Amino acid sequence: MPFPVPLTGVVPPLCTPLTPDREVDVPSLLRLVDHLVAGGVHGLFVLGTTSEAAFLTDRQRRLVVETTVAHVGGQLPVLAGAIDMTTPRVLDQVASVTGAGADAVVVISPFYTRTHPAEIARHYRLVAAASPVPVLAYDLPAAVHTKLPADVVVELAADGVLAGLKDSSGDLAGFREVVAGTRARPGFSVLTGSELIVDAALALGAHGAVPGLGNVDPHGYVRLDRLCRTGEAELARAEQERLCALFGIVRAGDPARMGAGSAAIGAFKAALHLQGVIACPATAEPQVPLSPQEVERVQELLIEAGLL
Amino acid sequence: MPFPVPLTGVVPPLCTPLTPDREVDVPSLLRLVDHLVAGGVHGLFVLGTTSEAAFLTDRQRRLVVETTVAHVGGQLPVLAGAIDMTTPRVLDQVASVTGAGADAVVVISPFYTRTHPAEIARHYRLVAAASPVPVLAYDLPAAVHTKLPADVVVELAADGVLAGLKDSSGDLAGFREVVAGTRARPGFSVLTGSELIVDAALALGAHGAVPGLGNVDPHGYVRLDRLCRTGEAELARAEQERLCALFGIVRAGDPARMGAGSAAIGAFKAALHLQGVIACPATAEPQVPLSPQEVERVQELLIEAGLL
Amino acid sequence: MPFPVPLTGVVPPLCTPLTPDREVDVPSLLRLVDHLVAGGVHGLFVLGTTSEAAFLTDRQRRLVVETTVAHVGGQLPVLAGAIDMTTPRVLDQVASVTGAGADAVVVISPFYTRTHPAEIARHYRLVAAASPVPVLAYDLPAAVHTKLPADVVVELAADGVLAGLKDSSGDLAGFREVVAGTRARPGFSVLTGSELIVDAALALGAHGAVPGLGNVDPHGYVRLDRLCRTGEAELARAEQERLCALFGIVRAGDPARMGAGSAAIGAFKAALHLQGVIACPATAEPQVPLSPQEVERVQELLIEAGLL
Amino acid sequence: MPFPVPLTGVVPPLCTPLTPDREVDVPSLLRLVDHLVAGGVHGLFVLGTTSEAAFLTDRQRRLVVETTVAHVGGQLPVLAGAIDMTTPRVLDQVASVTGAGADAVVVISPFYTRTHPAEIARHYRLVAAASPVPVLAYDLPAAVHTKLPADVVVELAADGVLAGLKDSSGDLAGFREVVAGTRARPGFSVLTGSELIVDAALALGAHGAVPGLGNVDPHGYVRLDRLCRTGEAELARAEQERLCALFGIVRAGDPARMGAGSAAIGAFKAALHLQGVIACPATAEPQVPLSPQEVERVQELLIEAGLL
Repeated sequence: MPFPVPLTGVVPPLCTPLTPDREVDVPSLLRLVDHLVAGGVHGLFVLGTTSEAAFLTDRQRRLVVETTVAHVGGQLPVLAGAIDMTTPRVLDQVASVTGAGADAVVVISPFYTRTHPAEIARHYRLVAAASPVPVLAYDLPAAVHTKLPADVVVELAADGVLAGLKDSSGDLAGFREVVAGTRARPGFSVLTGSELIVDAALALGAHGAVPGLGNVDPHGYVRLDRLCRTGEAELARAEQERLCALFGIVRAGDPARMGAGSAAIGAFKAALHLQGVIACPATAEPQVPLSPQEVERVQELLIEAGLL
Repeated sequence: MPFPVPLTGVVPPLCTPLTPDREVDVPSLLRLVDHLVAGGVHGLFVLGTTSEAAFLTDRQRRLVVETTVAHVGGQLPVLAGAIDMTTPRVLDQVASVTGAGADAVVVISPFYTRTHPAEIARHYRLVAAASPVPVLAYDLPAAVHTKLPADVVVELAADGVLAGLKDSSGDLAGFREVVAGTRARPGFSVLTGSELIVDAALALGAHGAVPGLGNVDPHGYVRLDRLCRTGEAELARAEQERLCALFGIVRAGDPARMGAGSAAIGAFKAALHLQGVIACPATAEPQVPLSPQEVERVQELLIEAGLL
Repeated sequence: MPFPVPLTGVVPPLCTPLTPDREVDVPSLLRLVDHLVAGGVHGLFVLGTTSEAAFLTDRQRRLVVETTVAHVGGQLPVLAGAIDMTTPRVLDQVASVTGAGADAVVVISPFYTRTHPAEIARHYRLVAAASPVPVLAYDLPAAVHTKLPADVVVELAADGVLAGLKDSSGDLAGFREVVAGTRARPGFSVLTGSELIVDAALALGAHGAVPGLGNVDPHGYVRLDRLCRTGEAELARAEQERLCALFGIVRAGDPARMGAGSAAIGAFKAALHLQGVIACPATAEPQVPLSPQEVERVQELLIEAGLL
Repeated sequence: MPFPVPLTGVVPPLCTPLTPDREVDVPSLLRLVDHLVAGGVHGLFVLGTTSEAAFLTDRQRRLVVETTVAHVGGQLPVLAGAIDMTTPRVLDQVASVTGAGADAVVVISPFYTRTHPAEIARHYRLVAAASPVPVLAYDLPAAVHTKLPADVVVELAADGVLAGLKDSSGDLAGFREVVAGTRARPGFSVLTGSELIVDAALALGAHGAVPGLGNVDPHGYVRLDRLCRTGEAELARAEQERLCALFGIVRAGDPARMGAGSAAIGAFKAALHLQGVIACPATAEPQVPLSPQEVERVQELLIEAGLL
C-alpha cells in the first residue's frame, strides 16, 4: 500500500513468535497480526528491536516480512526494520525486506563502529537514495550508543531524505526539537517509541507511537491515542497510567539473572502466551527465559490491567 | 591447516582493500597478504574490526576469506571474524566463513541488545558447540559496549569452549587475570589487540598480538615479538616506542570531521597505499575519507618511522 | 518562612553573579532576586548547579544564602543546594546553609565515589535526620553519573524522609513514576528541572519547575505555569516552544572550545548582563568565557524572544 | 621535607582509620603510618580516594594531614589530595593541606561540572600558580568521568606546571604516552595507581606506584618495586601475581548489596583490622559495611597471601 503521509496513530513493533526450537512460528505470528488489527492499530512495524530483529537470521527476517505483508493484504502499512551495522549491510537488508513487500524501512544509525554525525547523515542519504520505499530514522541510543542528533534529523527531513523518525531515546526535549523543526514538512512523521509517555509526546505534536507494550494491549494504546486526539487530557492520563502500571511486567525478570532485553521481550511474550495469542513464549538465543515465578508476576499484572 | 595450540606470535587483523567503488580489491588483498607473510607474521586475522567487517556485505566477507585462504595455502593459520549481533546470526557467519576455509573463528559478545554475563557465556557455548573450527573470544568494549568479564573467559577456557581470547579492551589488569586463570590450560591462546602495549602484554604472559598497525609495519611487530621472547627488554621497549610513534597516524584525521574509526582505518589504508601495497585507500561507506593534508601527515610519520 | 507543602510553581535556580575578580557580586545578586520576584516566581533556589555551586567556596556559598534570605525577607521560600560528595560533607553544607537561613535544602546523591542504591537511600536518611529543614532530593545524572532510582525516591517519600524531588535527569518516564508513586503523599513536591518540557511535566502531575532559563525569562515560565494550570494547552505549548527557542542561547558557545557547562552558564549570564540585571557576565574558574561573537548570538536570540 | 625530584618508588594512598562513630582514629592512623614506614615505602599519600577523602569533612582532612606530617617528621615526603570539584574550591583545599604541612598536593580534574580539556589545563595552571608546593595531577576517570588527556599532561609538564602524574585510569597505553612525552623533563614523576600492573608500568618507564593494596601489604609492593628495578623480571612477575591474588579481597563484598567503593575500602580496612594495624574497620557513611562472612573471605585471602 502507499505509505501514509504522514503516518499517524499506533504502530506496534511486533514481537516475533518462535517455536520451542527457535524457528519463526508462523501461525502464532498470524494470530498476533490479527490481535493487533482487531485492536485497531494504524500500522505494523516488523523487525524492530522488540521483534528480536537482532536475533533473527536473514532467512527468518524475510519470512516475517513476507508472512505479515501477505496476511495484512494492504489493510495497514507494514514497516520493516533494516537493522545492521553500516550502510553496505543495511542496503542488503533494505533490498531483502522491500523485496518481501515492506511499505517502508526503519533504519538505525551505524553501530559497532565508532561514528560521527557527518557519517550518520551520509548513512541515511545513501540508504534513502537506494531504497525503493520511504525511509524512517530510528533513534535508539540504548542499542547503538550514539544519540541521533535532532539537527541531523531536521536537516535530513528538510532535504526529503527521511519520511519520519521513530524515537526511542527517551529524550523528550530532543524529540520536541524534531517536532518543531519538521513542522514545515507536513509529510514527515514523528513517532515516539517511549511507551510510558505517549500522552506527552502526542501533546507536544508527535504523529503517533510505536509502543512495544502495544503487543500486549493494543486496545489500550489505540484508546490512549484517541483520547489524546480528542483532547480528553484527564482520561488520556489515566489510560497512560494504567499502561505504565502494566509495563511493570518488564521488571518481572530478575536483573541478577538476565539482561534487560531478556526481561522485556520475555515479559511481552509471556503476556502474549498467557493471553492465548502465541503458542510458545520462547525468546531467541542466548536470551535467558523467565522463571515460572516470574511468569506468575506477569500474570498478576495482566489481571490487574484487566487483560486476563 | 590445523590450528596451532596455542597460537603465538603476531597475527595482524588484515585491512580489506577496496576499489574506488567499494568492491573488494582482490589483487590488493593478495599483495597485502604477501606483504604480511614477507614480514614474518605468524597468522592472519581477516574480518576483524580493522578489516571493516562491520561494513562488508556477506558476499564480500566470503570473498575475503576465500581469497586469503586460497592464497595462503596453509602456510599460516587464517582466523576469521564472525561479527554479528547475536547467536543465531553469528552461527550463520560461522557457517559462511568456515565454509570459505577459515581455520578458526573469532566471535564477539552479543551487541545491539542489552546483555548479561550469563547470556554472553551461553552465546559462546552455543557458538562453540556448532562451530567446526576452534572459537576465540573477542573482547572489544569500544564496539559492543560491554566488557567481556575475565571470569567468564576463564570458565569457558576451563570447559574447553574457547581456544583463545583476542583482547582489545585496553584493560591490562583484566587481561592478566585471564592469562593467570588459563595458565593451567596450555592450549589456550591469550592474544592482545592493544598494539601500543604488546611488550607489556607479552611480559606478563600473553601468547601473541593482533596489532592493527601490523598491516603497516609487520616487520616491526615481528621484531618486537622476537625481542620480547629473547628477553631483550630494553630493545623491545625501544621498538615498541617506535611503533607507538608510528601509531600517531590514527590522529591525522580531524575528529571534528570524522569518527575515530574513519580516522584509524583511513590512516592504515593511506599508509598501505603510500607504501604501494594497496591500489586505493578508499574506506567503506559511510566513513569519511582523510583529506590530502591528513594523508600528508600520515606520510610524514611513515618517513619518521623509516617505512618510506 | 515555613516551607510550602507542597511547593508548587516556578522556582528558578539563581545564577550567582560574580565580579570580574570572581567574588560574589552582591548588588547584582540583589537585582537578580528582584528581577525574579518581579517576574512572579514562587520560590528561589540558590546554590544549585546553575548557580555554579560547584565553583563557589564555602564562604561564597554562605554569602549567597545570607544575602538572598535577608533580601527576600520571607516573601518566598528560599531553597539552598548542599552540594558535596558524600554524607559527612553534605551534613556540613546543610549546617552552613541552614545557619544562613535557607528554608529547605536540596541534596544530590553521592558522587566521586562509586555508589549503590542502598547507599543513596542511606545518604538521604542520614541527611534528613540531621537537617533542621525539609530535604529535597536532586536527580542530576549529568553531574553525579548515577540515576536516582524512582523506587528509592518513592520509598523515601513514603517514609517521610524527603519533602520533594528536583528532577533534572531528562527521563520523563522515570519522573512520571515518582509522580504516580507519591500521589498518596500530598505534601511531597515533584519538580522538574527540564526547562524544555515543563508543559509535559505539569500535564502529567508535576507540582512545579526549576528552570535555569527562568533566570533569563521568569515571566515566560510563570506564564507557562499559569497556562498549564488553567488547562490552556495550546497556549502553553506555544509559550513552551518560545522558551525552547530562547534556550538556543546555550548553544552559542563553541563546543570545540569549551565544556557544555561553560556554554550554558555563560549564556545565562551573558543574557542577564545584556538585560542589565547583572553588572558582569564573568563565570567562575576554570570555565571558558563566551567570545564577543558568541555573546552576539545570545543577543540575537534574546531579541527574537522579545526580551531586548 | 623537599619534594623528591622525581619521586620514585612505592607511595601508598593511606586508608583513614575511623572510630565506630566515624571520627578519625588518630592512634590507628599513627600505627598505619608506622606499618607503612616499616614496610619500606618511599612516600605517603593522604587524602586520596582510598583515604575516603570524598567522605572526610574539612576538619577531618586537616587532622589527617597534621597527624601524618607530625608523625613522619620529614623522614618521607607526604603528599595530600586536594579533592574538590573545581578550581576555587580546590584552592581552598590546597591552602588547608599545605597549611597542615603537606609536601605536595595531588589534584584531580574538575568534576560534577561538565568540563573540557581547555578547562582542565586552565584548572591545573591556576592551582599550580597558587600552590606553595609541587602539584601532581591525578587521573581517575572512575571518579570524575573524564579522562585526563595525555597531551594535556605532557604540555603541562613541559611548561613546569605539574611535578608529576598519579594515573589510576587503567589505560596503560595513555600512561606510556605520558612517560614518553615527559622523558625530557627528568624531574617529572609518572606514578601508576594501577596496583595490578605495577610491574608493567615500571617496565615501560614509570617512576613509581601508588597502590591502595599497599596499605595491606607494603612489603610486597616494596619488594616488587625492587625486583623491577634490578631487572629480575620473573621474580617481579611472581610477586605481582601474588599481589593480584590478594587483591581478590575487594571482591569479598557482594555487589548486589554495596557499591564498588564500599567493597574495596571495606576490604582494605577489614584486612588492616585483621592484621591488628587499625582498631576498627568502620568506613564512612553512607558506605555499606562488609558482613561477617565477607570479612571471613578477606581473612582467607590474607592467609593465602601469607599475611596472617
